[in-house]
Amino acid sequence: MCVGILPGPSGKAIAAAITRRRIADKTCIFRVVTLLEPLKKDMVHFLELEHGSPDIARQAPPRTAMVQILAEGELRELHVDLDQQAVVSDTELPGRHAHIDPEFMKQVELSCLADPEVQRLVKELNLPEEATVVVEPWTYGTDGMNDMSEGLTMCWFYMRMSSDPDANYYAYPLDLCAEVYSDLQVKMIYRLPSTDADRAEFCEHGQEYDRHKIHEGSEYHPNLTSAPRTTTKPYYISQPEGPSFSIQGNQITWEKWTMRVGFNYREGMTLHDIRYDNRSLFYRLSLAEMFVPYGDPRTPYPRKAAFDLGNDGAGICANNLKLGCDCLGHIKYFSSVLVTPSGLPLHTPNVICCHEIDDGILWKHTNPRTANAVVARSRVLVLQTIITASNYEYIFSFSFSQDASIHYEIRATGILSTAPIRLHTTSSYGTTVAPGVLAPNHQHLFCLRIDPSIDGQRNTLVVEESHALPPLPHINPHRVGYTTLSTPISHESGHDLDHSTNRTFKILNESVINPTTGTPVGYKLVPFYSQLLLAQPTSYHARRSEFGKHAVWVTRYRDGELYPAGRFTMQSKGGEGIASWIAKREEGGRGVRGEDIVVWHTFGSTHNPRAEDWPVMPCEKMVVGLKPVNFFERNPGVDVAVARAGETAGSVLYQ
Amino acid sequence: MCVGILPGPSGKAIAAAITRRRIADKTCIFRVVTLLEPLKKDMVHFLELEHGSPDIARQAPPRTAMVQILAEGELRELHVDLDQQAVVSDTELPGRHAHIDPEFMKQVELSCLADPEVQRLVKELNLPEEATVVVEPWTYGTDGMNDMSEGLTMCWFYMRMSSDPDANYYAYPLDLCAEVYSDLQVKMIYRLPSTDADRAEFCEHGQEYDRHKIHEGSEYHPNLTSAPRTTTKPYYISQPEGPSFSIQGNQITWEKWTMRVGFNYREGMTLHDIRYDNRSLFYRLSLAEMFVPYGDPRTPYPRKAAFDLGNDGAGICANNLKLGCDCLGHIKYFSSVLVTPSGLPLHTPNVICCHEIDDGILWKHTNPRTANAVVARSRVLVLQTIITASNYEYIFSFSFSQDASIHYEIRATGILSTAPIRLHTTSSYGTTVAPGVLAPNHQHLFCLRIDPSIDGQRNTLVVEESHALPPLPHINPHRVGYTTLSTPISHESGHDLDHSTNRTFKILNESVINPTTGTPVGYKLVPFYSQLLLAQPTSYHARRSEFGKHAVWVTRYRDGELYPAGRFTMQSKGGEGIASWIAKREEGGRGVRGEDIVVWHTFGSTHNPRAEDWPVMPCEKMVVGLKPVNFFERNPGVDVAVARAGETAGSVLYQ
Repeated sequence: MCVGILPGPSGKAIAAAITRRRIADKTCIFRVVTLLEPLKKDMVHFLELEHGSPDIARQAPPRTAMVQILAEGELRELHVDLDQQAVVSDTELPGRHAHIDPEFMKQVELSCLADPEVQRLVKELNLPEEATVVVEPWTYGTDGMNDMSEGLTMCWFYMRMSSDPDANYYAYPLDLCAEVYSDLQVKMIYRLPSTDADRAEFCEHGQEYDRHKIHEGSEYHPNLTSAPRTTTKPYYISQPEGPSFSIQGNQITWEKWTMRVGFNYREGMTLHDIRYDNRSLFYRLSLAEMFVPYGDPRTPYPRKAAFDLGNDGAGICANNLKLGCDCLGHIKYFSSVLVTPSGLPLHTPNVICCHEIDDGILWKHTNPRTANAVVARSRVLVLQTIITASNYEYIFSFSFSQDASIHYEIRATGILSTAPIRLHTTSSYGTTVAPGVLAPNHQHLFCLRIDPSIDGQRNTLVVEESHALPPLPHINPHRVGYTTLSTPISHESGHDLDHSTNRTFKILNESVINPTTGTPVGYKLVPFYSQLLLAQPTSYHARRSEFGKHAVWVTRYRDGELYPAGRFTMQSKGGEGIASWIAKREEGGRGVRGEDIVVWHTFGSTHNPRAEDWPVMPCEKMVVGLKPVNFFERNPGVDVAVARAGETAGSVLYQ
Repeated sequence: MCVGILPGPSGKAIAAAITRRRIADKTCIFRVVTLLEPLKKDMVHFLELEHGSPDIARQAPPRTAMVQILAEGELRELHVDLDQQAVVSDTELPGRHAHIDPEFMKQVELSCLADPEVQRLVKELNLPEEATVVVEPWTYGTDGMNDMSEGLTMCWFYMRMSSDPDANYYAYPLDLCAEVYSDLQVKMIYRLPSTDADRAEFCEHGQEYDRHKIHEGSEYHPNLTSAPRTTTKPYYISQPEGPSFSIQGNQITWEKWTMRVGFNYREGMTLHDIRYDNRSLFYRLSLAEMFVPYGDPRTPYPRKAAFDLGNDGAGICANNLKLGCDCLGHIKYFSSVLVTPSGLPLHTPNVICCHEIDDGILWKHTNPRTANAVVARSRVLVLQTIITASNYEYIFSFSFSQDASIHYEIRATGILSTAPIRLHTTSSYGTTVAPGVLAPNHQHLFCLRIDPSIDGQRNTLVVEESHALPPLPHINPHRVGYTTLSTPISHESGHDLDHSTNRTFKILNESVINPTTGTPVGYKLVPFYSQLLLAQPTSYHARRSEFGKHAVWVTRYRDGELYPAGRFTMQSKGGEGIASWIAKREEGGRGVRGEDIVVWHTFGSTHNPRAEDWPVMPCEKMVVGLKPVNFFERNPGVDVAVARAGETAGSVLYQ
């Protein structure tokens, strides 16, 4: 575990325990080997000691690995004490499935293509000789109508019209879909609808498509497109004295910031113990879940949905960032280790990159009386990871600024997942992006988990709004006055955004008063305004993605409560997410004022595709901010050295 | 007029006409000399000819200068035909005032400081010997109670506690305020309130303040602060082959984009005839107005408000961007010419800069079947101007992307305007940012004027929302379906944002159908979600800033209708803004479907200051987008050359 968050003995102990297990059970398939988060009380104690006196000897919290295996077809979860090198628990998870398995998916594809009925139907499609049929498998649980507890896979069919394996097969969706069960048998084949009025039924005759039309303009790979534009001149960044950050193990120090970076199979990048000027801000920041439901109501499309963290694994899908030239300047890459089915370490290099960017002006003032301008430029530290979830890419990054603000940015790019549509028609459920190619409407809903430690663990979520004062002559004679209303949230709950009242979510430490302002110290959430889940509350989509019901949630911290759609997302039938946790608590356990709290922000996009998103989508950006609000006594970036004309930055005059 | 938007004879003709006028009227003071926007019908005709066949001889539309002078104390507006070199109209503007006059303001300051009663009251304040009293004049109109049609100036008092003229006097607000009339006489002196319960009255005894306390931490100028942090390592940008843009006069060509840049005393930077791949997108883009009302209801604070465009002039307040080292890379600066009171050209150098930045990833896909990653980086063209409005700076920039999107960004920085507060107290109307220093709550409301020409001048504003389908078994059996509802706006009107329905504002050309999607071509407004004006509708603030009532407005284009708070903002008593235009139109003149329309977006921030905004505020960013939506047949940036590892960008590995 080269990117584990804890110091202490290496991951060899996991291997030792795993090896013993493998000897005992030769049939087991390893699905997960990861570090469990330490108990928070132990970790906070450790961090207090570490930051208080870094040199004294101290005891790190126990390190425990979480291992999931498939043994005789059943999922089991083992906890391995890495100091004792011993399995300390071994639990059956009956009826549960682990996240998707790329090896199994490959078998599903092959089985599907080998099925005689599939082969017969493909033959009937009368595809061009040069076409290669491609099957794209999407896991699903149950839709509540055709109830099965075992996981099933929906196989969507495309064809590749070029011998180049990087040709864009999403440009040629076929009107077939096969349902494959965990025994690798095709149980059902659908003909996909071709118009909005169509309802797919088993093996009906499909509509006519022109299967021979080459879609010029549907390729993005440079091997398959005409010569690129040549107008973009080179642009280089140089840092002759190296980067401004320093890194020891997984701890990053940069411009008064310190933090540790972690990585796991499910959440991908995580950040820990984030401090500015050695004042504690956040215990842990992570993207906790994402859900991508498609909005086409026609069978079998309601089964098209993805939990890219809980079901696919953001860590498993992470790109090697050295390939594809993702960043500029001085870059530090972090690598990680996952596990192979046989329990061996799977090295995943360069899954996180760390680099600096220039972000324009940090602050400026020109004194109009002297005409003297003072300007400081903004340097930003970026920690970035990129995942590929079949067709889509998601670029996740945390940015740290010299003014002590943090921004979490998601860029969605990649290729639209497509479906067939009758030529020369349009659909209410998507956009025609190429002849016979429908890009269906869908949503991306993300949930950012914010575990604050604003000057300590006991924090309060306060909702503040700005309201006009009433037009009363004695208090507001000119009718221009306004004031703020603050409401501390007392119990675990979900809240929504309201820009019309400037509704602001502040995470305060009510016991620490800013000596300048006389008010509690805090950080505020700068949310991303977006529509929440559109699926009806009774749908399986909604039952599985409870976090999609509200934009901001606050819960009391509990060890292990990391996933707001539950641990088994697509396989759940509801009742396992954040709303259910809250509903099931004892009344006394729901208080969140001045407690160790967790704040969750749900945001995303209702993505009704544009022609411009095809064949590869320009990045769609979503940004969430965390900004100090009366946490510091003044602008923490006021001491950034000011830019001096002709001296910094290598500015060059044009003409 | 080196940054006029029209080709043709130089501005010498203005000078000739002005000179004749000056001979005729020796007493006149020149307030404005600017180019009038040409009649749109003439200009569109000209642009069609120009883009159709750039080489043929063609007639430019007539050039007319708009000149405002003060003649015998009365404001007059003259139009000067520059081809004929003749004054073609000369109109009295009785009771009207031009924008603020820095020369007059200087006189107000001096008169105020010379007033015996002011001197007596200042003496009573018992200020330290080293203190210098500074007067900051803010213009105001009428508050409806003490009705006067002439403009008045509110003088706010501060002291500077250092001999350095760049010391931050906002750190020492004094509890005095003087009302100065246009005859330079002080008519009224207020003692400012010291607690929320206080009501200021003429010459009451003020509260006690500690006038001797030096506020360490209230300085930002490097001459007055301790040594800056030294941790930020140098970061250089080089473009060895030069920038990717080329510039002829005021026309910019960059990465398939073309546009002309303009500049005037009031709006500052304007953009014209914006095209991508020679397809027309926008006839004109401009920040049309901004209003900064303060929310403290206590007299005399309701008079604290600024129209930084309509009253101060964004062009007049523009910074020389070569001072203060505002940009990196290859920079092209544009300069402009304003006018001195005596009618001479006032050269204002480097008021706009043009440069490129790298904006991370434009698009990426990793084919999971081949593991081949393809990534294109995003290069962005930035046109930026920065204004100083007394204490505040606003950084206005238009950014153009290779994917044919435009972003308008505002960064607010500079120094908070402050007021006195009794030591060791807090206020409902602001934040205590230093001992005895209150930073009052206020709003910044901007209005971006978007004059579209989406494939031609006849466009339609369509409001599109995404709604869940009803849970009916025959159309939505799994209850996950949703669809979009589109409403073309038929009449001039104001609209609000609603993220809960993903309300999207599309500017379409309904007569041009995208051959791929089968739907009209368009661009969508990506709004900035923010609270609208908080002042009560009956207040003078609200009457003057009608654009602050709705987030999105659509009107039919009319020549000269450029300013949504009217031409005379602070001096107006209402009825001159965008809502009044609409209300006053004949029914038949209000249709906007398939007409030449203008779309206005009001956005901003309710700025309840943070301690972190002091003594100089880290940039607060607000971003508005304009993105193609089924305008192109595919991603217009798909032809950007992909980055090749080790070849582009000078990436360097750390460690």
